[in-house]
Amino acid sequence: MKEIKIGLFGFGVVGQGIYKVIGKSRNAHAKIKKICVRDVNKKREVDIDPVLITDDPSEILSDPEINMLVEVVDNPQASYSIVTQALKRGLPVVSGNKAMIARHLPELIEMQRRYNAPLLYDASSCGSIPVIRNLEEYYDNDLLLEVKGILNGSSNYILSRVFDHNEPYAKALARAQQLGFAESDPSFDIEGFDSLFKLIIITIHALGVYVKPEDVFTYGISTLGESDIRYAREKGVKIKLVAQVVKVNDDNFTMFVMPEFVYPSRYIYSVDDEYNGVVIRGECYDRQFMFGKGAGSLPTASSILSDIMALRHNYRYEYKKMGYLNPPSYTSDIELKVYIRYKETPVPGLLPFRQIIEQHISQNGNYVIGSILLKDLIKLRPILSAPDIFVCNFPTFFADRDTSPEE
Amino acid sequence: MKEIKIGLFGFGVVGQGIYKVIGKSRNAHAKIKKICVRDVNKKREVDIDPVLITDDPSEILSDPEINMLVEVVDNPQASYSIVTQALKRGLPVVSGNKAMIARHLPELIEMQRRYNAPLLYDASSCGSIPVIRNLEEYYDNDLLLEVKGILNGSSNYILSRVFDHNEPYAKALARAQQLGFAESDPSFDIEGFDSLFKLIIITIHALGVYVKPEDVFTYGISTLGESDIRYAREKGVKIKLVAQVVKVNDDNFTMFVMPEFVYPSRYIYSVDDEYNGVVIRGECYDRQFMFGKGAGSLPTASSILSDIMALRHNYRYEYKKMGYLNPPSYTSDIELKVYIRYKETPVPGLLPFRQIIEQHISQNGNYVIGSILLKDLIKLRPILSAPDIFVCNFPTFFADRDTSPEE
Repeated sequence: MKEIKIGLFGFGVVGQGIYKVIGKSRNAHAKIKKICVRDVNKKREVDIDPVLITDDPSEILSDPEINMLVEVVDNPQASYSIVTQALKRGLPVVSGNKAMIARHLPELIEMQRRYNAPLLYDASSCGSIPVIRNLEEYYDNDLLLEVKGILNGSSNYILSRVFDHNEPYAKALARAQQLGFAESDPSFDIEGFDSLFKLIIITIHALGVYVKPEDVFTYGISTLGESDIRYAREKGVKIKLVAQVVKVNDDNFTMFVMPEFVYPSRYIYSVDDEYNGVVIRGECYDRQFMFGKGAGSLPTASSILSDIMALRHNYRYEYKKMGYLNPPSYTSDIELKVYIRYKETPVPGLLPFRQIIEQHISQNGNYVIGSILLKDLIKLRPILSAPDIFVCNFPTFFADRDTSPEE
Repeated sequence: MKEIKIGLFGFGVVGQGIYKVIGKSRNAHAKIKKICVRDVNKKREVDIDPVLITDDPSEILSDPEINMLVEVVDNPQASYSIVTQALKRGLPVVSGNKAMIARHLPELIEMQRRYNAPLLYDASSCGSIPVIRNLEEYYDNDLLLEVKGILNGSSNYILSRVFDHNEPYAKALARAQQLGFAESDPSFDIEGFDSLFKLIIITIHALGVYVKPEDVFTYGISTLGESDIRYAREKGVKIKLVAQVVKVNDDNFTMFVMPEFVYPSRYIYSVDDEYNGVVIRGECYDRQFMFGKGAGSLPTASSILSDIMALRHNYRYEYKKMGYLNPPSYTSDIELKVYIRYKETPVPGLLPFRQIIEQHISQNGNYVIGSILLKDLIKLRPILSAPDIFVCNFPTFFADRDTSPEE
């Protein structure tokens, strides 16, 4: 590949960042040949030659000179259509759409093989932190035990305003939206789905196993209330939205996205504001911590640039761990220790706790702390969506394995 | 490569760790066929079939079945001899000897090309933290501005005992030796040479430029005294031994290993005990932080395993940045702000300070704080070796560039 001629889909915050970053990189030998957008007349921050802009996808997909496709559109359906068309034509693709990738990963892997066309998506998980690449290449052995982290910058920003800056939740959310951290519909970030999609992608590169998003317990922070914040503060902990995939024994792993009480001794305790932080734990090397800006125009764009450079050097994900002997199986048959706050919903009677450890009833809100099977949480997930309920996990409590109290 | 048959040189702490780690890894498809040691009769912790052990290098180098060589001997001359013989025979090699690699890197790169034999050495820098691989592959673009970190676990352990646990320096050093963190001759760690060699290796993968170890200012912590510790404590900072390579403008970079006053707001402030931590700073992605166990038997062995797996998948360092347009040049013509404590040596008169900012004279020790050119520090390095002198850098003080006060 002498010079990279990029067809770019999407010219929002990240797309414009890519345009800027490529301009800065003297040694990338890459240029953007065409940019496909929904609305060619939309005002944009970046000053760009109008001849580069089109709203006709075929101007990119049918241009024989374009030898790489970069896709950063918002809409997962549009993303799927663009990426699959490009792969079928044998075009190398870089994508940043975590929702689309998480939902279609098995098919996308199969298409990469069938059409001998690589698809990279490191930017889709944790922006500028090279989590996927390191799980695929460096932690490419049987030693890996756990990947756990703060994968969503917007929700972390909001929680950080609450726990580090004593702001009320509603004000913190409004501020995040004002700064552009949270989408106009913030549920993608706030309800944990952004973290979930990243976790699905991480899991296939960490353990070689694809788990469907709908099979994973996902709980966000939209119902976080003053009494929960007070409870955490009294215990000297912060609440953070944590995604984790954990081997529970040689044959099984579990995974979920849930608020968690995070103790000051933990690495992720100090991941504040819009930052992301990931702990990779393994036999022999113990815990490694990677920390950086997980979102935003330029950090995401610099990650896309890394993927562009990697494609230039013929790098592709090999999904090696999918071919391993006896890959571990996903299980939700695992006991967690959770805090559940409620008001009207009769939580202690509705949920099949294995053991109730603590129960507190007051005018400010009731809570129960108990051990419960993850599969029961999944089964009763609709109940937990009631606006009077908030669920929060206690860390590394798995009844059937030895856990270290420190992270 | 169907099955990896390893010839292992060295069976000390790391060598035995490799033996254990390979045993744990079901999917590595690797086995150790022969182990070459200096003394076959030496008692070892690991129980091993004596038929595997030899003291004759040719039993490895001339065995046509052995298809990978792993070298973790202590002695740099022995390491050089083994690695170059293997490369000449076209054998893929994994090495952990940072001193040997840092001294011979240009020749080793040339030999890899000439004999089409790859050499990987990720374990040589920061043990289990994948710094080299990420600099080579992920930060493979013009955005990189700085790599700065704590690269030596032993000296960091000692400083952590002093600053986090209030131990006297001598006691901390003794404890480190007792725990096996510091070598019986601790000068390699304590005087900064271990950090220096790692920095040399990091620099070629970060910026594509080889700098000879002897051209880099290197100052350790052996002369750290009570008055320096008190000074740092009063200012609310810790002293850490920091290695850094920093672009000072588009055309130049500088590098050095020196104790530094580290402020609580910095990522590396919380790198305690025997841990390593590296900050990678770039345009667009700002600062990323990688943290983990930098040394020790199993962490280093797990990093060696990553290199073994990478060789299995035909990975090699391409040293791409060495081919970049206008690589930056190393400069020592750069102003630093330093603290120099002294007693008998008349430091203020001997050193050509550009500006003296503060001077303090007392019975407990005198110090001067001033700005000075790095090249003058290099020139007068022998003077600074006097036992009454301790030098400590103030962070990110470069007169000719904008620096952010926060890390």
